[in-house]
Amino acid sequence: MAVVSEYRRRIEWGDCDPARIVFYPNYFAWFDDATWRLFAKVGLTPDVLVDQYRFAGMPIGEAKAKFSGPSRFFEEIVIESHVAAWRDKSFDVVHQIKNAGLLVVEGMETRIWCEPHPDDPKRLKARPVPRAIVEKLSGSPSRL
Amino acid sequence: MAVVSEYRRRIEWGDCDPARIVFYPNYFAWFDDATWRLFAKVGLTPDVLVDQYRFAGMPIGEAKAKFSGPSRFFEEIVIESHVAAWRDKSFDVVHQIKNAGLLVVEGMETRIWCEPHPDDPKRLKARPVPRAIVEKLSGSPSRL
Amino acid sequence: MAVVSEYRRRIEWGDCDPARIVFYPNYFAWFDDATWRLFAKVGLTPDVLVDQYRFAGMPIGEAKAKFSGPSRFFEEIVIESHVAAWRDKSFDVVHQIKNAGLLVVEGMETRIWCEPHPDDPKRLKARPVPRAIVEKLSGSPSRL
Amino acid sequence: MAVVSEYRRRIEWGDCDPARIVFYPNYFAWFDDATWRLFAKVGLTPDVLVDQYRFAGMPIGEAKAKFSGPSRFFEEIVIESHVAAWRDKSFDVVHQIKNAGLLVVEGMETRIWCEPHPDDPKRLKARPVPRAIVEKLSGSPSRL
Repeated sequence: MAVVSEYRRRIEWGDCDPARIVFYPNYFAWFDDATWRLFAKVGLTPDVLVDQYRFAGMPIGEAKAKFSGPSRFFEEIVIESHVAAWRDKSFDVVHQIKNAGLLVVEGMETRIWCEPHPDDPKRLKARPVPRAIVEKLSGSPSRL
Repeated sequence: MAVVSEYRRRIEWGDCDPARIVFYPNYFAWFDDATWRLFAKVGLTPDVLVDQYRFAGMPIGEAKAKFSGPSRFFEEIVIESHVAAWRDKSFDVVHQIKNAGLLVVEGMETRIWCEPHPDDPKRLKARPVPRAIVEKLSGSPSRL
Repeated sequence: MAVVSEYRRRIEWGDCDPARIVFYPNYFAWFDDATWRLFAKVGLTPDVLVDQYRFAGMPIGEAKAKFSGPSRFFEEIVIESHVAAWRDKSFDVVHQIKNAGLLVVEGMETRIWCEPHPDDPKRLKARPVPRAIVEKLSGSPSRL
Repeated sequence: MAVVSEYRRRIEWGDCDPARIVFYPNYFAWFDDATWRLFAKVGLTPDVLVDQYRFAGMPIGEAKAKFSGPSRFFEEIVIESHVAAWRDKSFDVVHQIKNAGLLVVEGMETRIWCEPHPDDPKRLKARPVPRAIVEKLSGSPSRL
């Protein structure tokens, strides 16, 4: 079980290319937007992450997407996102984009949990994901 | 053997995010740029594709990337691209991004060769990749 | 009097640059989004424009903006837009962006009303703005 | 007299919208790129600005552009840029974009010279432009 967020977005004129469909890199930008919103959905807004969890960033390790249908100007899409796997210092966010009820894009981002580097606050250091983060995004307290 | 193109690009201010590194979806935009340049390198500019090969587009089927190092404002990257696999109606373009000689991003796009749909010129139809396209990007005439 | 639309938007991570504020060209992209939404607010969606008004596009003639305050990641802005001037074949859309109640950006776009060129349907031709368009966006029927 | 930089750029597929021409906000992104390159042309790279001039940023105050002709996929444009006016704490950069020898876009950015705020290094403070910056970009030492 995992918390699932929904991010609705209208396709804008500038999102589309001369083929009159979404220029595909934009989908990855919306994955990024959607990941922040998934966290915010359980109260983990950017400010809370920094203030309460020593969070310094969640840089991308891998990203991929499979495109099965186009989206066009002024259509509305919904991006449904959840964390599909937790590892010690990283996690996978799965994104499913639906347009008029059809699944048109499926994607995944692997992100690395980072805190400020102890030797240099300007640098990042990969660190274990705090248990409270995992619990909140899993929709349930972890059992001991 | 495959023809390899090199696309040099300076990282611009607007390419970077508040972490002071490239916002990752931009890499996919550069993959797209690089694919067109790979084709152009062997004379297959967009105009030639349309005029001589009934080309109507090469929409994306899948895209993925693995990120192993950041790039920052005003650094120069090189994107080396080649077609790594040809299938009947699609092909895989592999992109390797180097920054100061180090491999920092590896990616792949699967693209579908399309011609105008016979029933509706506004729509696309996946079609076999013309042999001449394969040959030009393979760097050698196909043997019979 | 003019119809005013409101377009709310959260500032995304990828909208911001290393100074941790919105990269300014994005504001112009949001002006463009806002103009389409202003038209849609009075029923003039892109489909309706094309189907009922011979509309072929509204390319930009001029654009400008004055920036008086930054916006940052995860803040919400509101873009209020209206047509401030109608000329024979063009019009000015004024956009005011508010963040937490403060006016932070003021901009204007001059757009040209175009129909398909009679000699070549692929080209555009500037044409007088239909009276019904002016009336709808003025919020009142024109008096005769 | 002023130093003029030239920034050449190919129009990419993703730069264009469904009208098959450049989506206009991209021109402002290229103005931004061009301003950094103008500075770099006289040795004022981002690193040099920070290390030698207490530079903390040059946020935008105003931006405008007039568009007189479209540019399309795979065309090459040249952006010629120079500082047209210096004021105490701000300056105007004029950009002229040429496509196939024709002037297609003219724009201007007003930028504010900023140093770190004395009370809070995370904030910026507008400060007089250093005389050496003005001289370098004017192409001649100032006379006394």
